[in-house]
Amino acid sequence: MSIHKPIRTDIAWSTPSTITVKGFDLCKDILGTLSLGDIAFLELTDRLPTTRDSVVFNAIAVTLVEHGLTPSAIATRMTYAGAPEAMQAAVAAGLCGLGSVFVGSMETAARMLQEAIPDPARKADFDKLAREIVERFHGRKQAVPGIGHHMHKPVDPRAPRLFQIATENGFDGPYIRLMKQVAKEAEAVYGKSLPINATGAIAAIASELKLPWRIVRGIGVMARAIGLVGHIREEMREPMAREIKTRTEEEATAHLRNRGS
Amino acid sequence: MSIHKPIRTDIAWSTPSTITVKGFDLCKDILGTLSLGDIAFLELTDRLPTTRDSVVFNAIAVTLVEHGLTPSAIATRMTYAGAPEAMQAAVAAGLCGLGSVFVGSMETAARMLQEAIPDPARKADFDKLAREIVERFHGRKQAVPGIGHHMHKPVDPRAPRLFQIATENGFDGPYIRLMKQVAKEAEAVYGKSLPINATGAIAAIASELKLPWRIVRGIGVMARAIGLVGHIREEMREPMAREIKTRTEEEATAHLRNRGS
Amino acid sequence: MSIHKPIRTDIAWSTPSTITVKGFDLCKDILGTLSLGDIAFLELTDRLPTTRDSVVFNAIAVTLVEHGLTPSAIATRMTYAGAPEAMQAAVAAGLCGLGSVFVGSMETAARMLQEAIPDPARKADFDKLAREIVERFHGRKQAVPGIGHHMHKPVDPRAPRLFQIATENGFDGPYIRLMKQVAKEAEAVYGKSLPINATGAIAAIASELKLPWRIVRGIGVMARAIGLVGHIREEMREPMAREIKTRTEEEATAHLRNRGS
Amino acid sequence: MSIHKPIRTDIAWSTPSTITVKGFDLCKDILGTLSLGDIAFLELTDRLPTTRDSVVFNAIAVTLVEHGLTPSAIATRMTYAGAPEAMQAAVAAGLCGLGSVFVGSMETAARMLQEAIPDPARKADFDKLAREIVERFHGRKQAVPGIGHHMHKPVDPRAPRLFQIATENGFDGPYIRLMKQVAKEAEAVYGKSLPINATGAIAAIASELKLPWRIVRGIGVMARAIGLVGHIREEMREPMAREIKTRTEEEATAHLRNRGS
Repeated sequence: MSIHKPIRTDIAWSTPSTITVKGFDLCKDILGTLSLGDIAFLELTDRLPTTRDSVVFNAIAVTLVEHGLTPSAIATRMTYAGAPEAMQAAVAAGLCGLGSVFVGSMETAARMLQEAIPDPARKADFDKLAREIVERFHGRKQAVPGIGHHMHKPVDPRAPRLFQIATENGFDGPYIRLMKQVAKEAEAVYGKSLPINATGAIAAIASELKLPWRIVRGIGVMARAIGLVGHIREEMREPMAREIKTRTEEEATAHLRNRGS
Repeated sequence: MSIHKPIRTDIAWSTPSTITVKGFDLCKDILGTLSLGDIAFLELTDRLPTTRDSVVFNAIAVTLVEHGLTPSAIATRMTYAGAPEAMQAAVAAGLCGLGSVFVGSMETAARMLQEAIPDPARKADFDKLAREIVERFHGRKQAVPGIGHHMHKPVDPRAPRLFQIATENGFDGPYIRLMKQVAKEAEAVYGKSLPINATGAIAAIASELKLPWRIVRGIGVMARAIGLVGHIREEMREPMAREIKTRTEEEATAHLRNRGS
Repeated sequence: MSIHKPIRTDIAWSTPSTITVKGFDLCKDILGTLSLGDIAFLELTDRLPTTRDSVVFNAIAVTLVEHGLTPSAIATRMTYAGAPEAMQAAVAAGLCGLGSVFVGSMETAARMLQEAIPDPARKADFDKLAREIVERFHGRKQAVPGIGHHMHKPVDPRAPRLFQIATENGFDGPYIRLMKQVAKEAEAVYGKSLPINATGAIAAIASELKLPWRIVRGIGVMARAIGLVGHIREEMREPMAREIKTRTEEEATAHLRNRGS
Repeated sequence: MSIHKPIRTDIAWSTPSTITVKGFDLCKDILGTLSLGDIAFLELTDRLPTTRDSVVFNAIAVTLVEHGLTPSAIATRMTYAGAPEAMQAAVAAGLCGLGSVFVGSMETAARMLQEAIPDPARKADFDKLAREIVERFHGRKQAVPGIGHHMHKPVDPRAPRLFQIATENGFDGPYIRLMKQVAKEAEAVYGKSLPINATGAIAAIASELKLPWRIVRGIGVMARAIGLVGHIREEMREPMAREIKTRTEEEATAHLRNRGS
């Protein structure tokens, strides 16, 4: 028998007449007071957001809710078509794709920024840090995370808007500054338009909010769950899953069916 | 070749310089203005919430974020232990269990209420409706959805608090009234304490907000995704998955190992 | 504190030098002896298959491995496009859709058969049972499970082939007989071609193999996991996910973009 | 509008009277002939296995079916407890955890071997290759993939048995030789018992079977799906999910409840 280690949570507990979440009484302190975005902030930081935290955190989370007919949204709709009695599994299927290519790229960008500036209170040489970052990715023939967008160019409109909200609320710190410098440096080195994208802006602002890079992808996961429920709702009324399936199958197997006949 | 049906979404679309979600300009109209809960309401109803809608909708969604170490939370933690590089899949694993037994019961309760009162504007005989509902479930030896709780008794404190918030905001309509009557009737018929639980209160209030029962489970799915990210964050710092696994395996196989020796 | 119930498994256990699965020594009794299909049979029945069991069980499982570009396969490919580092999550996403509409229908058909014939050793009036079944579904305006196919008509070629394999191996029992009678009766009542489909044949044969209806969907889930890995392999070499996404988004938002310009 | 790229699959296609999988007629060539393991081999290689391929491939796949009460199996059981109507989602939840820590480690080991020996037909200096591999991982303070086991020591009994099966069937090639040399070298450098584990043996044998490392994790995913259905079957009869949940919650929140009283 192995020696047992303790098992412990500090998230929530209940008695017959009370429910406590992160030290707050759900019925007295939270319901009617905290919004969904604010309790998300509490889950990620163990503290209630200030008004400024709340505005900024809600803005980055809201940005991630809805990106239209993404591969995730299509996966959710396909799953719903097969298992309409299990909507939760359709959302789950959509979330499974929020990996390194799409939403997960926020994590890479936040990691890049937080590893370059481990202590935001200390002075930093932003030009030098940006140069080192861009050189590192360029040397490995990789894209720099957080910049560039296949459609939104020369500017991803979400980045300046999010930075404006951050600045208005006092979050114009070193991570945002470094992110901007990285984009500038990268445009010079890669020789093309590389605007800060939504991912890069969110990574920088999440870093200003002191969210560790390891949890940053989680903002995207929670936000997108909301959007995917919206896609299920539309799929209920105006389904597209079967039509996509039919067309895909027809085209993809045409060369086999023609050969077969 | 089959004839193609049109594929159409009205959720979101983009140009290089704009992103539109449900008819609103993301950067101008939404970011900095709408909170995460409000955009969730927009996804579910196609309209912006009034202040009263917002308070009430956020309250029911917030109620569903965190229920502590549920089977879902444990599934998420187990999954994270095996695939820490894919946090999104750990949240997905946790969501997969939000079925008929736990969060999905909101859907059953909302359906019960909405089928009993198809048109909330028309007069209804609440006593008769409640009697019919309770008789139907009792006759099938089933539990009436939305009432009773293994721990929170004689009152689930979330229900009166949520009803209070609903009433303060003008949502004291027929669905809440019927839910209360059903609980009263059920206590008489089943002969035991059957308080309205969180699920029942949320089902009634969601019905007052005119959310169709088919989408009601979605409120739980989106809310719980937030809570599950919180559990991953705690699992990163204070892991319990491996310890649960070790203990479970040791105890569960003890009779085999003893026999084997 | 609640009183603890015992936790117990009889599936597998290990010592430093041995691994035991369902009572068999993995290294001595299973590896090199049992095939993948045979260990699947062992998982589902707690016994080793006879040669005849093995042929028949492998045939029904193999039937379910690959159905081409199903909604599940598309969900898997979409997920892989977003999270190529988490192939397991892409398979999971595809499995999530094996619900009531597609693979899960085997469960409904098996339940129908097993509830009609609780004891296959007793004599049954197949005409009467089939009439009752068809009347019940027809009365509710539902489709009878296990019959009819949108493409494979007037015959789903898998059904006669699977029944042939079953018969050759001594499994021509009451469930197959009832399934055939149900199809005949349904064609008369619904007035159209309603051949036994793969789902219906598998449900009947699984019942002959004494697999309880509650676990029958599991044969489809395990088999399809194999097929979905095959789709990931093809997606690695000849990707289609992004192209499907691009086309879907373009067409689905055309009415919005046109209005916007 | 973007220019469309072709969408194409070569996996399967159908006509009303035929189903073709990988060029074989399902009803004539596959059903009754190919076992589940053999069609899995076909999905992974586009060719039918020889008898020797079949024995060896089935052995490595079977090894991965059942590892007892793993975190994955617990996640599956937790999910089933919440959504018993969606068994497929419970299997999906369990698969989501087959990442870098557990089953995914096969991929890392296979990659290590295949990158060291890009062409198995060419002569190789195994001592040198093994030294380089071990130095690389040791230098980064990482564990060498495919060796060491917390329980199965000094020998993981699966490795010699799998190698024996491989050798008996003519698959005693350079990848197995290198894997053995890596283990020997690593024991010297790390100064402890580091037997080849099941993961390492499977990675080596899969490489002998010419399976590219990128798809190797897929063998584990498909195999474990079978085992997880077995866990659901046991959970139906002898449930443990709620008991694990109750105990975990009680212990994990004891410090909060004590403080609260």
